Amino acid sequence: MKIEGQPYRSLWWSDEKGCLEIIDQRWLPHELRIQEVRSLDDYADAIVQMRVRGAPLIGATAAYGLAIAMANDPSDASLAAAYDRLHATRPTAINLRWALDRARTALAPLDPERRAEAALALAREIAGEDVDINHAIGTHGLSLLRRLAVEAERPLNILTHCNAGWIATVDWGTATSPIYQAHDAGIDLHVWVDETRPRNQGALTAWELGSHGVPHTYITDNAGGHLMQRGLVDIIITGTDRVTRRGDVCNKIGTYLKALAAKDNGVPFWVALPSPTIDWTVSDGLREIPIEQRDPREVSHIQGAGPGGIAEIRVTPKGTPTRNDAFDVTPARLVTGFITERGLCPATEDGLAGLFPDLIARRA
Amino acid sequence: MKIEGQPYRSLWWSDEKGCLEIIDQRWLPHELRIQEVRSLDDYADAIVQMRVRGAPLIGATAAYGLAIAMANDPSDASLAAAYDRLHATRPTAINLRWALDRARTALAPLDPERRAEAALALAREIAGEDVDINHAIGTHGLSLLRRLAVEAERPLNILTHCNAGWIATVDWGTATSPIYQAHDAGIDLHVWVDETRPRNQGALTAWELGSHGVPHTYITDNAGGHLMQRGLVDIIITGTDRVTRRGDVCNKIGTYLKALAAKDNGVPFWVALPSPTIDWTVSDGLREIPIEQRDPREVSHIQGAGPGGIAEIRVTPKGTPTRNDAFDVTPARLVTGFITERGLCPATEDGLAGLFPDLIARRA
Repeated sequence: MKIEGQPYRSLWWSDEKGCLEIIDQRWLPHELRIQEVRSLDDYADAIVQMRVRGAPLIGATAAYGLAIAMANDPSDASLAAAYDRLHATRPTAINLRWALDRARTALAPLDPERRAEAALALAREIAGEDVDINHAIGTHGLSLLRRLAVEAERPLNILTHCNAGWIATVDWGTATSPIYQAHDAGIDLHVWVDETRPRNQGALTAWELGSHGVPHTYITDNAGGHLMQRGLVDIIITGTDRVTRRGDVCNKIGTYLKALAAKDNGVPFWVALPSPTIDWTVSDGLREIPIEQRDPREVSHIQGAGPGGIAEIRVTPKGTPTRNDAFDVTPARLVTGFITERGLCPATEDGLAGLFPDLIARRA
Repeated sequence: MKIEGQPYRSLWWSDEKGCLEIIDQRWLPHELRIQEVRSLDDYADAIVQMRVRGAPLIGATAAYGLAIAMANDPSDASLAAAYDRLHATRPTAINLRWALDRARTALAPLDPERRAEAALALAREIAGEDVDINHAIGTHGLSLLRRLAVEAERPLNILTHCNAGWIATVDWGTATSPIYQAHDAGIDLHVWVDETRPRNQGALTAWELGSHGVPHTYITDNAGGHLMQRGLVDIIITGTDRVTRRGDVCNKIGTYLKALAAKDNGVPFWVALPSPTIDWTVSDGLREIPIEQRDPREVSHIQGAGPGGIAEIRVTPKGTPTRNDAFDVTPARLVTGFITERGLCPATEDGLAGLFPDLIARRA
């Protein structure tokens, strides 16, 4: 998508520099900084520090990380070590494991001499597929929004939580892809952007939407239920970090609360779901998905634009204990359906299996 | 309650200085600043700027404000003008109107010469009653917590939203009064403190609890539902800004989301309710209670402790539109019950009428 008229992706391989370049998202929405990622340490750091974030983008980044490891040392030991190193960066995002498994499976049988080139080609392929998948999600979501827009007699109000936008993917985003396509198709719409504490990824979504010219309003995480009670939300679309075969949705902490309010107010709650985000190996999201605990400092401190540039302040009293569960699980019963690259489906095992019979068979 | 071992109330009349003194809560939890409040302008400003906040404390402050107006000019016109001026400061808090109505009713029939003294006595009375009411709420809430603590085999986990603590009242707090009394009675408990964006009143609650030695953890507003799903919340207690005769609860934005999660997970959801907070004139909270829209800047900017002292940062991209609904309404069906100064009751018209037959009769 575009930043001030200039087309960007979230990451790109520079043949000239011989390395990956990323948008370092820790400085957004206040500054646009591009960073070169060279060593395996750089890659692991980029994921852990959330210079890159968002399940699909993490997957693509990890694939490039394996390629770098293979370029430096294509041995079996190096492949195994790089896999483990990258896999440990973020335990919840299924796309990370998906991309690493896919790369390892493709590279392991190869002669080590051929691994570097193959790994880089595969990383490019994974990144390209992400763009295609997200574009397809947008097309299917557009049909859904078009239907709702006809019923609404004012701008269609869409609420989203966190940033499942183009910078959380290689391009288009997942939850935002239908929004961008609907906006570009001339549908009159407005987006409620949840702030998404503790890391305020809503500011990223607001930045994206603003850069693209999509009308939006930034609200606190507390506000969505109230807006739904007042009839001010027509549909919720979120992304997800992992969906179980039964349709439970693991996503950014707070998603569950919005899903409860949607149910209570008859607001459709849709999840944009690229198929690599489905974890066919787990059924019960609450019992089977480990929830990442992140640094308590993300809760006690907030970064923003101060008078002298980007600054960090402490919002809690000094020494206050905090807790930082990064995700929660929204049970399938609260989810109206999934917007996938192959179309819409209900949030059930049958719904997912109907669209992805090839995948469920392969992983069962 | 105590700050570093020193007993405080949220406001007190200084005979020596001939004015009210308040804790200016805009600098908490980072700095303790005391402010003298002298003119009617000072009073209105203290409420609008949220130097004082919390429904009961606003009521008591407004009563002192009327007293000041009467000291300066005890005429009928001055009484009417001061009433209007103070009433316009915060439209949602019922205690404000309650205190002003009570004072006007008492003062209007008096000879103007006697109004100043009577108004000051009445303000002291209202402040004193608030302390008594909150202490009684704590005693009844303590019996509830004692029961739950016996069932729990680990520290009792209480979740609270916003600050319904002693600094939101003259003393004790409403939601916190049972917590302080249970803690002082030796019940092993731990409090989950919701951050409560946009103004992060959770930081005030954390500061209060920390000062009193009550174990607690500060969490984002997004986290409570997840903690309830995991069995980590035994009871929720919040305050309220206005309760309808049918039991709908208007409270800080986000309360409704926590009530939904409580219902979904079988967690008891109690509201600490001093009787002046009941608005017997309204039934349907969603239709009849006006929701205060506050400055959008409260959403886009956050105050905290920076390296050079208290600082404010902008968390949104420059120019991002924000919206700031200050309250939401939790329907009575989601509320387990009320903790009042006369005991516990279900969140129904019969429940409230049973405890307050005198009040419902007077206002019907």
